[in-house]
Amino acid sequence: MNPRTRQQLMGVSTATLCTALFKRGLLRQFVQDVRPLNPALPNMVGEAYTLRYMPAREDLNTLDVFKDREHPQRKAVEQCPPGAVLVIDSRKDARAASAGSILVSRLMMRGVAGVVTDGGFRDSPEIARLPFPAYHQRPAAPTNLTLHQAIDINVPIGCGDAPVWPGDVIVGDGEGVVVIPAHLADEVAAEAVEMTAFEDFVQQQVMAGRSILGLYPPTDEQSRADFAAWRQQHGR
Amino acid sequence: MNPRTRQQLMGVSTATLCTALFKRGLLRQFVQDVRPLNPALPNMVGEAYTLRYMPAREDLNTLDVFKDREHPQRKAVEQCPPGAVLVIDSRKDARAASAGSILVSRLMMRGVAGVVTDGGFRDSPEIARLPFPAYHQRPAAPTNLTLHQAIDINVPIGCGDAPVWPGDVIVGDGEGVVVIPAHLADEVAAEAVEMTAFEDFVQQQVMAGRSILGLYPPTDEQSRADFAAWRQQHGR
Amino acid sequence: MNPRTRQQLMGVSTATLCTALFKRGLLRQFVQDVRPLNPALPNMVGEAYTLRYMPAREDLNTLDVFKDREHPQRKAVEQCPPGAVLVIDSRKDARAASAGSILVSRLMMRGVAGVVTDGGFRDSPEIARLPFPAYHQRPAAPTNLTLHQAIDINVPIGCGDAPVWPGDVIVGDGEGVVVIPAHLADEVAAEAVEMTAFEDFVQQQVMAGRSILGLYPPTDEQSRADFAAWRQQHGR
Amino acid sequence: MNPRTRQQLMGVSTATLCTALFKRGLLRQFVQDVRPLNPALPNMVGEAYTLRYMPAREDLNTLDVFKDREHPQRKAVEQCPPGAVLVIDSRKDARAASAGSILVSRLMMRGVAGVVTDGGFRDSPEIARLPFPAYHQRPAAPTNLTLHQAIDINVPIGCGDAPVWPGDVIVGDGEGVVVIPAHLADEVAAEAVEMTAFEDFVQQQVMAGRSILGLYPPTDEQSRADFAAWRQQHGR
Amino acid sequence: MNPRTRQQLMGVSTATLCTALFKRGLLRQFVQDVRPLNPALPNMVGEAYTLRYMPAREDLNTLDVFKDREHPQRKAVEQCPPGAVLVIDSRKDARAASAGSILVSRLMMRGVAGVVTDGGFRDSPEIARLPFPAYHQRPAAPTNLTLHQAIDINVPIGCGDAPVWPGDVIVGDGEGVVVIPAHLADEVAAEAVEMTAFEDFVQQQVMAGRSILGLYPPTDEQSRADFAAWRQQHGR
Amino acid sequence: MNPRTRQQLMGVSTATLCTALFKRGLLRQFVQDVRPLNPALPNMVGEAYTLRYMPAREDLNTLDVFKDREHPQRKAVEQCPPGAVLVIDSRKDARAASAGSILVSRLMMRGVAGVVTDGGFRDSPEIARLPFPAYHQRPAAPTNLTLHQAIDINVPIGCGDAPVWPGDVIVGDGEGVVVIPAHLADEVAAEAVEMTAFEDFVQQQVMAGRSILGLYPPTDEQSRADFAAWRQQHGR
Repeated sequence: MNPRTRQQLMGVSTATLCTALFKRGLLRQFVQDVRPLNPALPNMVGEAYTLRYMPAREDLNTLDVFKDREHPQRKAVEQCPPGAVLVIDSRKDARAASAGSILVSRLMMRGVAGVVTDGGFRDSPEIARLPFPAYHQRPAAPTNLTLHQAIDINVPIGCGDAPVWPGDVIVGDGEGVVVIPAHLADEVAAEAVEMTAFEDFVQQQVMAGRSILGLYPPTDEQSRADFAAWRQQHGR
Repeated sequence: MNPRTRQQLMGVSTATLCTALFKRGLLRQFVQDVRPLNPALPNMVGEAYTLRYMPAREDLNTLDVFKDREHPQRKAVEQCPPGAVLVIDSRKDARAASAGSILVSRLMMRGVAGVVTDGGFRDSPEIARLPFPAYHQRPAAPTNLTLHQAIDINVPIGCGDAPVWPGDVIVGDGEGVVVIPAHLADEVAAEAVEMTAFEDFVQQQVMAGRSILGLYPPTDEQSRADFAAWRQQHGR
Repeated sequence: MNPRTRQQLMGVSTATLCTALFKRGLLRQFVQDVRPLNPALPNMVGEAYTLRYMPAREDLNTLDVFKDREHPQRKAVEQCPPGAVLVIDSRKDARAASAGSILVSRLMMRGVAGVVTDGGFRDSPEIARLPFPAYHQRPAAPTNLTLHQAIDINVPIGCGDAPVWPGDVIVGDGEGVVVIPAHLADEVAAEAVEMTAFEDFVQQQVMAGRSILGLYPPTDEQSRADFAAWRQQHGR
Repeated sequence: MNPRTRQQLMGVSTATLCTALFKRGLLRQFVQDVRPLNPALPNMVGEAYTLRYMPAREDLNTLDVFKDREHPQRKAVEQCPPGAVLVIDSRKDARAASAGSILVSRLMMRGVAGVVTDGGFRDSPEIARLPFPAYHQRPAAPTNLTLHQAIDINVPIGCGDAPVWPGDVIVGDGEGVVVIPAHLADEVAAEAVEMTAFEDFVQQQVMAGRSILGLYPPTDEQSRADFAAWRQQHGR
Repeated sequence: MNPRTRQQLMGVSTATLCTALFKRGLLRQFVQDVRPLNPALPNMVGEAYTLRYMPAREDLNTLDVFKDREHPQRKAVEQCPPGAVLVIDSRKDARAASAGSILVSRLMMRGVAGVVTDGGFRDSPEIARLPFPAYHQRPAAPTNLTLHQAIDINVPIGCGDAPVWPGDVIVGDGEGVVVIPAHLADEVAAEAVEMTAFEDFVQQQVMAGRSILGLYPPTDEQSRADFAAWRQQHGR
Repeated sequence: MNPRTRQQLMGVSTATLCTALFKRGLLRQFVQDVRPLNPALPNMVGEAYTLRYMPAREDLNTLDVFKDREHPQRKAVEQCPPGAVLVIDSRKDARAASAGSILVSRLMMRGVAGVVTDGGFRDSPEIARLPFPAYHQRPAAPTNLTLHQAIDINVPIGCGDAPVWPGDVIVGDGEGVVVIPAHLADEVAAEAVEMTAFEDFVQQQVMAGRSILGLYPPTDEQSRADFAAWRQQHGR
């Protein structure tokens, strides 16, 4: 990812990004029903590296399988590139874990940017204390073997009903996670920065008592003039 | 609303109010599955002013629609009376936002008492920091245009499976939101104050080690006598 | 319960316990979709004492029923043994309360170890402030009479899709609640202590930058040697 | 059950019965989300004999358990009284069977009046061919041991969110199943016969082109006169 | 509606119409999760006349309300224009009825084209026997008063998550129901007739053993030539 | 597949197969919540050939994509081997179609044994008339492009929460669909034939009035003797 794009995405919200994507006809890029374990962290930004789970068949999912260094869950944790986000397709099923604190810690130490599952994490209180962005549906103490079998690494997946292609740019904030198609990342990031400036201006105006009519959107000439002045004044 | 009623409702819980309504045969007045974005705020009390969403048809919900000052969402935000609560029927669908921080800030600045949706808010971390009661199901970054079209202002609606008539009295606390039919507000508020006094008495007794049998409800004569004494002592 | 077992279970996680149960072919012992009202408390440990709700028929569930000292809900609260956990089968229905702060306070004062429902509690903000472990699905202000009728005390039940037999050992932490069959409690507790030592070792190694391959599980000879040294060093 | 009551209930619909119960303040007596396997059969009428399932723990639910003649599922099938309806609380979980064609056939041969589960039956195509009323949510091929453990016979239960007390009168038709509290069965049956006569009259009038206004309900004097004449004419 | 449009829509499928709408960027016009009570009837075609339900408050929904000739449910039944389809927004809640056989019969006798609810009908076996298209989610014996209050006639609504505006053209077949925006009805109908001709041609070819590659869609020149010949031959 | 195994599986039920799998510790092989479009057909038996859908991104799913002969949906239809069953992972989402009658007809003409999706088919009335086994959740008129993108052919998938590996043996009957792991197919088929003989014997006995106690399972010596005689008599 363009470093400038990464930097820009650190400063915008998933809500703003969703609107930028909406303008481009992309309406399903928000990962539904996931939340940050630690909502106080800075934004999570990185390219998607994916892991796909399928339903676990009992005979193929004994504890012994982890002795295999090629087990896709463990391999994904060791191979997810630094700066990327590991996105896990758990079929929206949080009855068993997608991963636990040890694997998540390993991702953090390896320089990975964050982790997202549409299922749940185990050891969630420990994960919540790490300075590392993690998003899930709800806590799930049972080992993944209980219901999930890791089967594919870095293929296109669904996560929380959003399409995720390897290399897509993933952004998370205190609200949730959005998926930006790779080829749109630069333009969407730049546009979101612009939109954020305007929204910050509007928010200040509203907090000062101004009506939203004519201001948001700025259909009044005065609103546009005021915004221009504000930008100059605030260097944005 | 009677100012005394408003003041009384600031000091009672939604749980107590639900019981007072239960006594009157009203069993569905609690808005199901919504929670406060900021659970530390005082109670929210106000008369319902409603906004109804319907499913969005794509051609009628481009970003341009907000240029129309008559757009019902924007109009509702500018017209909801000070002291009222804006209650939004989002068909319990939190996959797209009901509103965001700018509109919610505007409601706050206009003196509105609070906002409730059975869908979700976007910019939820910002909204959670406002000194303004807001209740939703879960965060929802996508713009409302993605799935919702504002269609009616101040008509009877459903919110979280509860019936909401314009003018009904809405009360929210750290637990959730309850809808009091307008004609019952005064008597229910007064009764809830009485019930709260008794519950506070019972809670103190229980924390002092007393059994609930004969005390809650006060089937023992002694319990009733003790409560009478407690009231006198505490001036309640 | 063996006091040593109780003490051991105070120091292990529900995630570790789920894995110990998984090894024994028990895959459904985690109570699905419940969470602590106060996630900062120490573990909850106690033997299950159960309460079963059925759907409420309106004529049998007026407020008067609580005048009956034999009402199963009130009786369960007064009879649940100190040190036990009251586990309530609310049919996963949180539209009405399973109990409120007065009953939960009474349980606490009686020395009960905690309370779990797969429905919801009312007065949840008050309960969250008690130094007493309570787990539910979500807040529910309406009185239990609205939808639930207490019908059986200390029979086998389901709670959050987990089977709960009276006397089973219930453990809760910041993640959720697990049910350990009574006859397995001692061996599972002992094994979980061992597993926890290993997980703590692994976590430290991972935080120091070590790969999980060969370490977790410890398929490398070196990992096993390092762990043996670590145990000696840390007296575990 | 009064034989006259049984006979009356053979000729009225669950819809009419629900309205008669609604008049008495009972709004939750319809078993939600169950359907007849064979919708062409006559009404099912009988007193409730209940079976309660709890979630199955794996070690307690091997195929061997059926060797025990006291296993509650098998015992319920052999002990459910002729003329009664076996009502099964399967926690609305149709992922595993509540029973199969052999047990259902045995119920039929024993003179039982019908069987209802809020889960699913296995061998459902075979059951659908029996001249025996059976109601479920959807087919479920896996044996009950997979997820359900039979635990209690003839206790009060929930079935499809309806309260079912042993001895309540169960009526099923092509639409579904309703639960009539035992003490109301006679009066509700009698009233439903009256209501059915009126509904039949109205239906004929409507099919002849008459408006429902003033007719249904019969607020017009003429409607009441016409109905009186119709009753005389049709001997009802 | 243009009579030619109506006639055309009698001969095309909801699946084909959904594709014609998809081409125009309209992806949510299929009414989700409703089915015909009698799947053997011809297509249902008519303009939408709507009825909106809200959650019922108990004190406003006694049986007496039907004595009011202005009750919106009864009024809608008497006022829905001949040739129109009555579309009911029941908030996807089939726990109580949207209407029963008497009202549906009255609609039929009045020349209405059909009825759709995203809830359920009572007396569903009787409705299924009428030569009148009716679509619902599942049978629901309890009277609508149990949970639903009719509140608005002919306003824009949601039905099965589809947006329905009064005057939109509603088409139902054995598969389900689709909503065509009024201004698109003529062109979509005409296009669907064309598409149906091509699909019938393709279906014949496929049943004769031809591959779909190059045929569906007709990327091969030969496919287009064959279709031209087929049209001429069949006069379509 | 062994032709004898195929033949055996044509004569046993999914319920019996589920029990045979249960004995081997496999509890999740039944495809949840799918049903036959035509329940009157003979069993469906074949090896799994899979198709995986992911959520559709709008820009990648225009109608033009079908012009690509390599589109995975069309390719799967042309390449699924005769005698195999096409099993589609539609993420249990039936809001848009998995396939329609033309593709299903092509599968039939190519000698494929059947098709299963955990989503829905469009043109479902037409598919229901084909002499070809097809299973889905419910009808879905919208084209798959609306929500689904075909992404992988013949990889391990989930279908209705069951794990499906390419080559697993799929069996469908009037009740639903079960997945037999490839390596178990021969032994499970043989055992199911034996079990079916016993179940047929028991069913006859029960229909003749015999109790299930001691008979099912055959814990009585007499039952085993009677079965032996029955087998000889019926040549099974």
